[in-house]
Order: sequence, then structure tokens, then C-alpha cells
Amino acid sequence: MAQLRIPGPTPCPPEILKAMARQMINHRGAEYHEMINDVTAKMKQVFQTKNDLYLLTGSGTGGLEAAVVNMLSPKDKVLSVSIGVFGDRWATIAKTFGAEVVNCKFEWGTAADPAVVKKAIKDNPDIKAVLVTHNETSTGVTNDLGAIAKVVKEAGKLLLVDAISSMSSIDLPVDKWGCDVVVTGSQKGWMVPPGMAMVSVSAEAWKAFEQAKIPRFYWDFGKAKSYLEKGENPWTPAISIVYAFSVAMDMILKEGIQSVFARHAHIGQMTRDGIKALGLPLFAEAKHASNTVTAVGIPVGLDGKKFRQLLQSEYGIVIVGGQQTLDGKIMRIGHMGLVSEKDIKDLLAAMKATLPKAGFKG
Amino acid sequence: MAQLRIPGPTPCPPEILKAMARQMINHRGAEYHEMINDVTAKMKQVFQTKNDLYLLTGSGTGGLEAAVVNMLSPKDKVLSVSIGVFGDRWATIAKTFGAEVVNCKFEWGTAADPAVVKKAIKDNPDIKAVLVTHNETSTGVTNDLGAIAKVVKEAGKLLLVDAISSMSSIDLPVDKWGCDVVVTGSQKGWMVPPGMAMVSVSAEAWKAFEQAKIPRFYWDFGKAKSYLEKGENPWTPAISIVYAFSVAMDMILKEGIQSVFARHAHIGQMTRDGIKALGLPLFAEAKHASNTVTAVGIPVGLDGKKFRQLLQSEYGIVIVGGQQTLDGKIMRIGHMGLVSEKDIKDLLAAMKATLPKAGFKG
Repeated sequence: MAQLRIPGPTPCPPEILKAMARQMINHRGAEYHEMINDVTAKMKQVFQTKNDLYLLTGSGTGGLEAAVVNMLSPKDKVLSVSIGVFGDRWATIAKTFGAEVVNCKFEWGTAADPAVVKKAIKDNPDIKAVLVTHNETSTGVTNDLGAIAKVVKEAGKLLLVDAISSMSSIDLPVDKWGCDVVVTGSQKGWMVPPGMAMVSVSAEAWKAFEQAKIPRFYWDFGKAKSYLEKGENPWTPAISIVYAFSVAMDMILKEGIQSVFARHAHIGQMTRDGIKALGLPLFAEAKHASNTVTAVGIPVGLDGKKFRQLLQSEYGIVIVGGQQTLDGKIMRIGHMGLVSEKDIKDLLAAMKATLPKAGFKG
Repeated sequence: MAQLRIPGPTPCPPEILKAMARQMINHRGAEYHEMINDVTAKMKQVFQTKNDLYLLTGSGTGGLEAAVVNMLSPKDKVLSVSIGVFGDRWATIAKTFGAEVVNCKFEWGTAADPAVVKKAIKDNPDIKAVLVTHNETSTGVTNDLGAIAKVVKEAGKLLLVDAISSMSSIDLPVDKWGCDVVVTGSQKGWMVPPGMAMVSVSAEAWKAFEQAKIPRFYWDFGKAKSYLEKGENPWTPAISIVYAFSVAMDMILKEGIQSVFARHAHIGQMTRDGIKALGLPLFAEAKHASNTVTAVGIPVGLDGKKFRQLLQSEYGIVIVGGQQTLDGKIMRIGHMGLVSEKDIKDLLAAMKATLPKAGFKG
């Protein structure tokens, strides 16, 4: 079995995979009611929120679409704070559904500057919401969401957060920072297979929901809310994923979320230190390097594609390349969820042995 | 473990549950490419189609929404042929996204009359598409889709089919009947856990897609098409469900689809005969009784809720009640996918023993 060191899906612990193999139950019966209520309550602890929280059957991108269609009306002006592919994607989703998007882009590899965000809001006082990526998987950068949230909430704007690759791995106190809608996905630090997006919805977000006019049905937060009141989902949920969450939530809470964040910080640092020791450049600015994904620059001479192929064929380790304009320029290593020091040591040793075979002169 | 005799999720065979427990792989790597291409090709055999076919991460209702947003523009006129809750739901989805819905409703428990559908199309020559439910789970009725398809296609209209609870259990030759978009879901006769919707898209549907103006992103068939050309999905797919399909498709094709349909017909007939022998009324008109769901009328004296509770607590068998106006009036027994003669015999024996305890005077 290959060792997945990609930014999702992440490897699942055996006890979670075992839960995936559980037989089906009635999703409109008492056992499911109890399970979804339990998972939701525990997940709120990881989100550090008292807001409503829903599990939606779909990919993370579905969760981002859900945030847009539940919060906005066509022609609403939104500020897109983007530092990479996934920030851009979210802006495209908002535009697709008719929002007027004001772009606030930062150079790939860097984080968003809260002062620039503040000015963009000041220059566009009629914006309704700000879309921010907490952790940008395409560049390995984590935004200073606390500082960004401060300027957004001081301006009284709605704060929508893509936390797909951060929530459960990197500290994101939803209520403390005043995040209105926060989206994440099962296949990241949660250690669960892909198939569900999770969203938290603040009281202020519910007010926006009442005004929002973009048509919505499948992703409708109102339907999610009314069904969850009876311990159900509006549509047949991915029951196996909920089983998996039942186990995952207990694992995460038993370890303690602050310990989980500290472990990710340690593994992230270890990865970056190891990459530097190999003589490879880190793509992300040091101050904002992500603790879930490390982007590694491909130096002149190194054949990145060949390197990744050799890592996989000779060591069974899978890492991925760059996206869009970063294709051929970076490689990305995922280290969220179930990743140990040994995993990173093995990865670094395999990289060290493989680099010369792919043209790296060090 | 309870015996699920509900209209989905259906019980999964052990070899499919085992596949659900497989470790994650890279959804942008060669192994996944091969698997999704293989599953898609085999699934087309069950759809009896050469049309394009996509697996979308989401519930069946997501597939119905996908059909609407990919095929229609706001203000497009559509004919909704509805014989129950799920037909009505699809009409609501179309209306939600701005379509002008002409309702062609039939009494619950009966099938749609193709002659009435023909007249409705004649009376509304400007309709663009017809929405039809093949098998209506809420009433246990299967429409004569072949005859309906004939009148729809003779009139040159787009035919959109909800085959969520029929495809893989009841014969639905997509190409022979000219169905343009056909939607089904993993948790029905496919014997796979919930989490994916599957849709087939005809050449004519692609023409409609080019014209369709309802905003779409997550469910966009165009994105599904361009990614599948490289053996991928646009967004991280529910990989475990694809693993499960890998096994399920082989099981279904090994048995042979005509044999699978015949087995469902046999099990359906056996269920209906047994229900009648118990002295209980069948809700659906005999000619169109479904081979995947049997709706049983609740006679005066029988406490339907108590009856279902006793069946579950004393025999571990789960059946469900009626929806909306049928709540308290019918009970529904699912018998699609992995259901044997013995399962039905056990169910009938348990029902026989339980009926008197719930007030049935027989």
C-alpha cells in the first residue's frame, strides 16, 4: 500500500477504515439520530463553536458552493481574498452564481496582508461578505485568519472561510474570531475518507441566509437545519462517512484538539527543516508556512515528475506536483491527520536517496 | 444487526462492505484513473447506454438537481409527470431554479397514463423537457417509462428520468427508450452505501447543456466530462464508494442484468403475494406495482407505528411508513439489491406473528 503524503485524501487509521465497513442502518431511525447528534456535538468542539453545524454529503467544493448559495444574492458584492488556486476557485464559484467579485489577490507563496484586506473593504464599503481561505493547499500557506477576521468583523462584513485543509489540524477558533460560515471536508485532517463537507453557520450568517436570493435546494442550510432538529439530514447521507466520523471524533477529542494542533505544528516544522536540509527551497514564505501542506520548489536540474514517479515506484510514497502556473515549479507534501515523525523521516530519507536519480545536483 | 427492508439504503453484501474499508489512494493517480474508467464502462452496461455517464459525489437528490441545472434555463417550461413525493420533489427543484413547471399529476398509487402525458405535451408545445420518475418510492409504483418515453421523444422533447430506485433493479434500456438524462443513486439496487449519484447524458442532452443558463458549478456536467477524459472527477470523489462499485459492478454483471431484473420481479411478486395472503391491502395498482418497493395499506384497526416498532424490536426487521399525506396510511417494504427469498419469507412470517399484536383483526 502506497504511503499517501498528499494534501488529501489522507491515510485513514485502521479503526476508521473498519467503521467504513459497517452495515447500513436506516438514516431515518433512532440509531442514526443518536449518531449524527453525537458527531455534530463533538465536531463543534473541534470547530470551537456554539454555532450550528451541518454535515453535507458532497466534496469540499460542494461546501464552498453551499456557502455562496446560502449567503448571497445575485449582484451582491463580495471581496475575494485569494492566495492561490483554491481561493481563486471560490471566487469563480461566487461569480458563477452571480455575485460581483472584488479581487484581493496576493502573490502565490505569500499570505494575505490584513492591512491590504482592510483597505480593500474600506475602498468597497458596499461589499456584503469576504471570502477567505484559511490554509491554501496549492501553495502551502496559512493565512493569519485571526487578523483578517478582525478587520472583516470590525467592518461589519460577513466572513466566509474555506477551512477545508486546516480545520482539525490548525487552530481555528470559529466563535472567538467571529467566522460566519466555515467549510471543511472529511478527507483532510479528520482522517476520514472523502464524501462529506461540514459547515458551521453563525447567527449573523442565518440573518444573511434569510436575505439571500441565489436559488438553492440540495445545499440549503434551512433544510439541513430543520432535518437536524429531528436528528436527520434532508437527503440520504453518506452513512459510512458518519460511522467513520463517530470513531474519528473520539480519537481527536481523546488526544485533545490543542495537542492535535501542536502535533501538526511539530510535523510541519520537521518537514520544512528536513526539506531545507536536503538543499531544496521552500515555496511558502517562512512566517506563514502551512502545518498541513509543504510546498517545495523544484530547483534547476531536478526533474520533478521523474522524481515523484521514482518516489512512488521505489518507495511507495506519493506526493503531488503543483497546480496551474505552479505545475512543474513546485511539489507538494501533505502532512495532515494520521502522520507520524517516522512517516516524515521515511519520506525525507526516500527523497534524499531519490533526488540524485532525478537530476538534482544538490 | 437489523434487517433493512427499507427503500434505501439497502443492505450491502460483505464483499462490498470489505471494499469500503480499503485505504485511500490518490484520486489524481493512475490506479484511480483505471478504477473510475472501469466502473464507468461497466455501469454503462447496466444503464444499457452508450451515452456519457458520470459519478457525482452526493445524494440522489443532488443528481436530480444536477439534471435541472445542467439542462435548463430560468423560465424554461417543463412538464413534471408526478405520481408521488419524489416526482413532486423534482418539480420543486425545477421551480426553485426558475423553471416554469406544468404539472401533470396522477393519483398516488397509480402510474402515469402515457395518453395524458401526450395530451399535456400537445397542450404545451413550448415545453422544453419532461421530468419523469421511473419508480416512485413513496407509493411503490413503477411507471411505464417505455410508453412515456415514446410520447416524449415523438414530440421531440428532452426526457429527464429519475431512476434512483429502479436502475440496476428494473429494466431501463436508456438508449432504446431515448432517455436524455437518467439519474440514480448508489444506495439502492446497486448494493452500495449512499454517497454517490450517477447520471447518464445523451447527445441531445449535451445540446441542451450548451444552451442551459441556470448557474452551475459543483454539478456541472461539462466539468465532469473534461475531468473524466483524464480518468478523474473535478472534485475529490467519495473514493470508498468507487471501491464498492468496483465490486458491485462485477457482481451485477456476473449475474447478468436480465437475471438481476428477473430476480427483482420474482421477489417483488413474492412480496405482494405474501402481503395479500396476510389479508393486507396493496396500495399500488396491481398492473404497475414496483418490484423494488411494496406499499402496504394500513387497514382500520392496525396501529401501523406500533406494528413497525414491534417488527424492529422483536425481529430486528426495519420497514418504513408513508410520507406526507400517506403518513399513517401505508407502510413500505424495500426489496431491492441484496434480498433473498428467505429474507422475504422471514419478513412475512414476522409480519404474520406481529399483526395481531398491533390490533389487526384480519
